[in-house]
Amino acid sequence: MPVNEFELIRRYFWGLGAGDAIRLGIGDDAALLELPPGEVLVTSVDTLVEGVHYPEDTFPEDVGYRALAVAASDLAAMGASPLACTLALTLPEADELWLQAFSEGLARACADCRLPLAGGDTTRGPATVITLQVLGACPADAVLRRNGARPGNQVCVSGTLGGAAAALAILEERWHPGPEAADALLARFNRPTARLALGERLRGVATAAIDVSDGLLADLGHIAAASGVAIALDSAALPLAPALADAGERGRAWALAGGDDYELVFTLPAEAPLPEGCSRIGEVREGTGLSVDGEAAEAGGYRHF
Amino acid sequence: MPVNEFELIRRYFWGLGAGDAIRLGIGDDAALLELPPGEVLVTSVDTLVEGVHYPEDTFPEDVGYRALAVAASDLAAMGASPLACTLALTLPEADELWLQAFSEGLARACADCRLPLAGGDTTRGPATVITLQVLGACPADAVLRRNGARPGNQVCVSGTLGGAAAALAILEERWHPGPEAADALLARFNRPTARLALGERLRGVATAAIDVSDGLLADLGHIAAASGVAIALDSAALPLAPALADAGERGRAWALAGGDDYELVFTLPAEAPLPEGCSRIGEVREGTGLSVDGEAAEAGGYRHF
Repeated sequence: MPVNEFELIRRYFWGLGAGDAIRLGIGDDAALLELPPGEVLVTSVDTLVEGVHYPEDTFPEDVGYRALAVAASDLAAMGASPLACTLALTLPEADELWLQAFSEGLARACADCRLPLAGGDTTRGPATVITLQVLGACPADAVLRRNGARPGNQVCVSGTLGGAAAALAILEERWHPGPEAADALLARFNRPTARLALGERLRGVATAAIDVSDGLLADLGHIAAASGVAIALDSAALPLAPALADAGERGRAWALAGGDDYELVFTLPAEAPLPEGCSRIGEVREGTGLSVDGEAAEAGGYRHF
Repeated sequence: MPVNEFELIRRYFWGLGAGDAIRLGIGDDAALLELPPGEVLVTSVDTLVEGVHYPEDTFPEDVGYRALAVAASDLAAMGASPLACTLALTLPEADELWLQAFSEGLARACADCRLPLAGGDTTRGPATVITLQVLGACPADAVLRRNGARPGNQVCVSGTLGGAAAALAILEERWHPGPEAADALLARFNRPTARLALGERLRGVATAAIDVSDGLLADLGHIAAASGVAIALDSAALPLAPALADAGERGRAWALAGGDDYELVFTLPAEAPLPEGCSRIGEVREGTGLSVDGEAAEAGGYRHF
């Protein structure tokens, strides 16, 4: 029996909408959100396409989780406090098993990211396309931008790097580590952590920030260009994903050029203490461009077309 | 030569982002918007899929226009003042002619709807899928909901009805009017008018409102159900699209059950004057359900799955 849009929304998504900021959630023409007085709205949108951004045989729970976490990472990179999200879901058919599992993964991410679902649109189409819009708030003068890095600043990154790129190499059968390492890396790819609490802590402290979505060098390239500075990295200081301990030179390459880790990379004044769980990986200098261990580096990164 | 995402955004979409509410537009991890003090954020999202929501041979200018107008109509239905929009665009390839034309149509709609483009995401995928998120603002106590219709209220609609459904009948070769009527109806389908100014005027006046997206009966069914009332329509009072003057009984059916007109249908206290350009088409009564000329009517409407 075909499921119509209203029934589908009621059955799978209605319960994900509880949140203090949501004054009116799913069920009218639009959702209503309250912002903390005096703060600006911070909003970003990210699309995942099946077969392009994740393999077709990915568990739908993981697809639901990842779709929101990836979008939420942009709020973290701005230092925004999360308010709510909306979902635009295009599916070839209303497969109820898929929807049940997808909504469970999404619900978990809504809770982990503090982003209750305020509304959305479900449509039929020839491919599975998932667009998440995330909405957050921040005092206007505390927003983390890309353009404030200054010579002498420390360059820091949260968590570990290279894990998501290694997972892609496993999925594409370009690399075959042991089963334990493979499981850890695939979990890293499918369930990224949006560093929202760290982003909020960096307000008024970090001079620039971005999330590692296209790759460390590519994303630091945006900071260097926007700030008009050079960035020098020390490859020995890169915090490799633990499962990459035995991956040799590949691990270093994945950490530098691989995307999808969704860690925060940010610049701090020289005297600022390193936040817990973060690593100092280089420094900001006068000039332009990036270097690794003193050698000029290409920003590279993922090409969307 | 392939166009990468950054270049594509710069070339086609960068210029659509001028607007008072946008504190930071395209080019960082997220966009920043300012809300008028004391107002709530009103947000909605709508997706158009090529071949599902519009025929594959639709001019890309019209696709760009319609994608935003359809989403903006939800802001109108809430009485919200437009602030900005974001675009999530999935394309099989970066076809520059298509992008140029699409962005021109979108730019026109951004101007007409007062919704400058604040950000977005472009992705490659097997189908063209266009998701527009619209952001507006309204004083919390003035938002137009679906649940405030009261017995004795007038039922009113803006503009004309049935034109978009007639256009679909032409596109699907189920109906063959003269060329002049066909042109007018197709323009109506491809370039709907989001009734934003009317929505703002209805704040504090209308008791309930919704936009005609799924069909007049289906959408009034939502008002009747949410408000706990019955709605009685007078079919002779329906403002048919002018090109349907000779369409006979079909015209009436399209006006009642066809979707995609994006007019506002709303309820007004008995004594309130009819806004310019609107028609009184019935009244709210005690009870439940809809009737047309005294006969019970099925809500029907478009099934998304």
